[in-house]
Amino acid sequence: MAGNTFGKIFSISSFGESHGAAIGCIVDGCPAGLPLDETDIQPELNRRRPGQSRYTTQRREQDQVEILSGVFQGKTLGTPIALMIKNHDQRASDYDNLKDVFRPGHGDYTYFKKYGFRDHRGGGRQSARETAARVAAGAIAKKFLAQFNISIRAYLSQMGDIKIEAQNFSWDEIEKNPFFSPDASKNESFEQLIQSLLKQGNSIGARVSVEAHGVPVGLGEPIFNRLDADLAQALMSINAAKAVEIGDGVDVVAQTGTEHRDEMSPNGFLSNHAGGILAGISSGQVIKAHTSFKPTSSIRIPGQSIDSAGNSVEVITTGRHDPCVGIRAVPICEAMMAIVLMDHWLISFGNRPSLRD
Amino acid sequence: MAGNTFGKIFSISSFGESHGAAIGCIVDGCPAGLPLDETDIQPELNRRRPGQSRYTTQRREQDQVEILSGVFQGKTLGTPIALMIKNHDQRASDYDNLKDVFRPGHGDYTYFKKYGFRDHRGGGRQSARETAARVAAGAIAKKFLAQFNISIRAYLSQMGDIKIEAQNFSWDEIEKNPFFSPDASKNESFEQLIQSLLKQGNSIGARVSVEAHGVPVGLGEPIFNRLDADLAQALMSINAAKAVEIGDGVDVVAQTGTEHRDEMSPNGFLSNHAGGILAGISSGQVIKAHTSFKPTSSIRIPGQSIDSAGNSVEVITTGRHDPCVGIRAVPICEAMMAIVLMDHWLISFGNRPSLRD
Amino acid sequence: MAGNTFGKIFSISSFGESHGAAIGCIVDGCPAGLPLDETDIQPELNRRRPGQSRYTTQRREQDQVEILSGVFQGKTLGTPIALMIKNHDQRASDYDNLKDVFRPGHGDYTYFKKYGFRDHRGGGRQSARETAARVAAGAIAKKFLAQFNISIRAYLSQMGDIKIEAQNFSWDEIEKNPFFSPDASKNESFEQLIQSLLKQGNSIGARVSVEAHGVPVGLGEPIFNRLDADLAQALMSINAAKAVEIGDGVDVVAQTGTEHRDEMSPNGFLSNHAGGILAGISSGQVIKAHTSFKPTSSIRIPGQSIDSAGNSVEVITTGRHDPCVGIRAVPICEAMMAIVLMDHWLISFGNRPSLRD
Amino acid sequence: MAGNTFGKIFSISSFGESHGAAIGCIVDGCPAGLPLDETDIQPELNRRRPGQSRYTTQRREQDQVEILSGVFQGKTLGTPIALMIKNHDQRASDYDNLKDVFRPGHGDYTYFKKYGFRDHRGGGRQSARETAARVAAGAIAKKFLAQFNISIRAYLSQMGDIKIEAQNFSWDEIEKNPFFSPDASKNESFEQLIQSLLKQGNSIGARVSVEAHGVPVGLGEPIFNRLDADLAQALMSINAAKAVEIGDGVDVVAQTGTEHRDEMSPNGFLSNHAGGILAGISSGQVIKAHTSFKPTSSIRIPGQSIDSAGNSVEVITTGRHDPCVGIRAVPICEAMMAIVLMDHWLISFGNRPSLRD
Repeated sequence: MAGNTFGKIFSISSFGESHGAAIGCIVDGCPAGLPLDETDIQPELNRRRPGQSRYTTQRREQDQVEILSGVFQGKTLGTPIALMIKNHDQRASDYDNLKDVFRPGHGDYTYFKKYGFRDHRGGGRQSARETAARVAAGAIAKKFLAQFNISIRAYLSQMGDIKIEAQNFSWDEIEKNPFFSPDASKNESFEQLIQSLLKQGNSIGARVSVEAHGVPVGLGEPIFNRLDADLAQALMSINAAKAVEIGDGVDVVAQTGTEHRDEMSPNGFLSNHAGGILAGISSGQVIKAHTSFKPTSSIRIPGQSIDSAGNSVEVITTGRHDPCVGIRAVPICEAMMAIVLMDHWLISFGNRPSLRD
Repeated sequence: MAGNTFGKIFSISSFGESHGAAIGCIVDGCPAGLPLDETDIQPELNRRRPGQSRYTTQRREQDQVEILSGVFQGKTLGTPIALMIKNHDQRASDYDNLKDVFRPGHGDYTYFKKYGFRDHRGGGRQSARETAARVAAGAIAKKFLAQFNISIRAYLSQMGDIKIEAQNFSWDEIEKNPFFSPDASKNESFEQLIQSLLKQGNSIGARVSVEAHGVPVGLGEPIFNRLDADLAQALMSINAAKAVEIGDGVDVVAQTGTEHRDEMSPNGFLSNHAGGILAGISSGQVIKAHTSFKPTSSIRIPGQSIDSAGNSVEVITTGRHDPCVGIRAVPICEAMMAIVLMDHWLISFGNRPSLRD
Repeated sequence: MAGNTFGKIFSISSFGESHGAAIGCIVDGCPAGLPLDETDIQPELNRRRPGQSRYTTQRREQDQVEILSGVFQGKTLGTPIALMIKNHDQRASDYDNLKDVFRPGHGDYTYFKKYGFRDHRGGGRQSARETAARVAAGAIAKKFLAQFNISIRAYLSQMGDIKIEAQNFSWDEIEKNPFFSPDASKNESFEQLIQSLLKQGNSIGARVSVEAHGVPVGLGEPIFNRLDADLAQALMSINAAKAVEIGDGVDVVAQTGTEHRDEMSPNGFLSNHAGGILAGISSGQVIKAHTSFKPTSSIRIPGQSIDSAGNSVEVITTGRHDPCVGIRAVPICEAMMAIVLMDHWLISFGNRPSLRD
Repeated sequence: MAGNTFGKIFSISSFGESHGAAIGCIVDGCPAGLPLDETDIQPELNRRRPGQSRYTTQRREQDQVEILSGVFQGKTLGTPIALMIKNHDQRASDYDNLKDVFRPGHGDYTYFKKYGFRDHRGGGRQSARETAARVAAGAIAKKFLAQFNISIRAYLSQMGDIKIEAQNFSWDEIEKNPFFSPDASKNESFEQLIQSLLKQGNSIGARVSVEAHGVPVGLGEPIFNRLDADLAQALMSINAAKAVEIGDGVDVVAQTGTEHRDEMSPNGFLSNHAGGILAGISSGQVIKAHTSFKPTSSIRIPGQSIDSAGNSVEVITTGRHDPCVGIRAVPICEAMMAIVLMDHWLISFGNRPSLRD
């Protein structure tokens, strides 16, 4: 398990390079009897899919998922569910000029140094294309958790300097704009920012927030597999992630104890600064996490770098790329939180479906 | 492995409650032949130990480590190294009044709900006392890594609103003040803040930064065990942690691509916004991570809560507690980064000492 | 990881049902730079493939392997290698009459009780068809190990009461007969036995021996991941396996200390009763393991059983089945030993190819 | 986790050298609320303890277990249970003459070659003394499983050529003789064999059988964590084990399909050749496994070997050793089966005690 498997009881093992034959994953540990077919997964992939609007990369991929195993007569068997997404739009020639060049901000240099050999086409394994496999796996976890009224939703909470505002927050808005923003009043600002970046050939960072509602108290194992620690690993493993926050996150540094601690009454908690996790274990409140994504490294503005022989080169990325990778990270954050929660749910309650009937 | 073991090849399995007989851990996977005795570990424990100054909790613990196995004639055997720290100062009666009460901000409620039964004395397993075991394990990892000129150091980078300043930064200052601060010009402000909090019976958050120098390019496994993802899990697993950042962290949200991407010349990288990790793999630059710690939940100012019968109660914590738990997290952050790096070092280079001779 | 992943650093995650769309696996942890394409894998699959002779099941499967990822320009990338084998000959209707019946000796009953729902077509996930995925993964491990002159070979050492004889042993014979027997003098007896069983509609058990040559001293981790313990898990995980022996195996019960212990001289060991493993660690001698396989459960002779409603039924298996499943286990035993040894090789020597250049 | 941890959800991490300060283990994953103190564990250790009769080694160890964590007010907390057994009788000088010598049949040579350095005192980590930690952990698993009427018992089924006979089998006899034999009619033969071996300074192998009664149908995960595969790893990991058999074991090689397959009637299975496991999953029948142990390698009869400089030496073991190590393996086999079953029980039913109330 050289890094491509995640989860203890419910697990995902991912495979595939950006411009290889296919990407996909094996989802292991889903209990038997869950109704499932491709139509449960495809809508999530469509949310993540590139080429959806001018605000995301224009690469045209159908991202059509095929279930190769683990489902029979429309229900999960309890056996591994293999998911495959074939790569169609493999305009690898876009990348020929980058074959021996290390693009700044990418893993080209580190992969080359680690492996001594790399697939330069679209970043190969480093590409965020791999996250489609996670979104597919996450769709299964979301469907499983929904049986217990656990739901997971993410949204764009900041792009550049523009933050959404709590008073304008509406879950209904999220799917109505190309930014996954819950604050309709910011759509125009986001659009102007993206337009300006496209013109410059530049890019911008973003912050994605994800929430889980309906999680029972008591999920999470002490110390190293605290729910927050597992979420931190899961969210930081997303391409371009540079920070993971739980609840009030970095703001806790400037808080006092009286401000931060969530007091309780017989009717429940009086606030949720902790983000629904206390001592690593879910408190029954809404679980809240935030991930900060760096600006897209592939931009049209020339940058200094070196080639594999160590010579100085100037790099311009001419391929089709998102000006803000954080936008498409919204369904990925949902997927990763769903995978973590389903794993912890199974650790607590077991994988025998009969128990829950 | 219900959450108390961390690491794939080099691992730590931790045990112990705050006021039980002992705490400790088993360190597995340390290659044979490393010179080691208690004097290599004790100084790190002393740095973390409570009761060192009036700025940290006045609980008096010797924190004397005993090596029970894995070392023979002053060298590691390659077998598990069991470390034990007996608990001496077990003024458990301090906690009698909290037996049936859920302290706000603590895991009392979540542990009770998860397990149906809990050790109320000083938080039991939830207590940050457990981190002494990690610091002991980390001392071994630090010594191992030092053989390859890899060094790990942490420092307090912010407390409340007070941030250290880059132009005053000095590694030499860190051990000279009770705050692990590298900026001597802030000592007075930190002291005043702590004094004021002690007077109020309140507490404050803090941010701890940790760096690894000398890490070779190529450590980290793709996707889920990216070096940054493993660091995120490791650092978020520390008590009171609410955010983990790599490199520029949350600041990347407002950065453009041209600002963020670290360009390269034949002489190396021209900047280090990424924090020494690209696509999850070490770049050969300094690795930088930051952890945000919430303010101590145990404070003297009364708070509303409930008891295990669901009745409303007022909680005042009268025990001995740090006004800023983040301070003592400095050696813990070092330990966790050392454990992650040693694990990845062994995955890359193997555990056979003969290979390295 | 609900049971379908094996290995710590070099791992295989398997998927697929006998009569589903495809079977296959993800091979993770293979170092970069190993020359690899389908032609390295296909010959091993052909050795295991059904329909090769009248002595094995007549199901016609091409067992054509496709590499979906992890290989670029004919070399491994260090990223996961996904292998897929499509199922073509899915005469599922053969199994319609068994839909609600538990075949004696099969996992029909246990799968039904565990999952509450099962794929009855050819045994679904319980089918030995799954082992094709392991053979494909094993081909990669064999090729990797061959770089270090480690070779793995298995053979049929017993079928029914007929044992091969040491004085007739020849590695060259193994691929020349349909039994994988190294003793040409037994071919006629094996043939007569099989013919007689085919006539009766009955089946017979078999013992398969596997050896690894060229394994360096020092592979294996103490206690639970001793090389023999990992081999025991790996070999016992093969369908129909009921015993795993190392070296002299069950014969050690009647041996005295002077008979069993392998004495040493300055020129090396004087015997190999231990099977090349001492205290769980390879000794540098030939590693020897043996697996006993039960007779095929699917036979034409009627047997008593029950259906899913608990009613008594008589079961006759009319599908195409091997009279001796042990024969085709020969390449599977090789594959499992190769996977175990490659995992331990990487634990000892690391996964960085540069180190070995 | 360099080999010293076993189990997915319920796990044991073992530590300690034969003549170091202490041995012990951390038991992780035991659900909260199980009544437990040292008196639940000590009797099992006493059964395994050396120095009990002249038939086992005369080393005098109290093997007094101390619970360091995980238990509060007589009940498990759900947190790691650390168990420590101090080493008292450390007559290490017995071993001084063996410091640079590789004893035949022991791991001295393989440990030296693997680690380049070893603890020669009584075999260090290779010593079967380590199994005391497993017996202690197994006592907890046995107590947990007993809540669900699952019981585990082992016995000596063969020593040298002497096999117990089914018609004389009595569970009541096992604790009444020093051999853990269920067949009183064989006591005299066993005694004569041991006396003769003691006189010669030689040793003999043994076979230990272990059964689990009351296991529900459906435990075990497909493919690599089949119940039989996990049992094979667990039992083969015991010192001196050379074979593991499930049900009819090696005898299946000579069986036909009609003989082996266990037919069913509406009243249940009509036989149990499979040993209670079908396709890796428990069938609800008695689970049966057998382990073959080699003769003790430490004997008084001189043997040829080499020293660490490669020179020829003659080795005579003068320390106190069992003439038949298999005898004391009886409680160890029980412990390992209990650990495997508890782990699988938790995977199926979860670790939340409230669910089971």
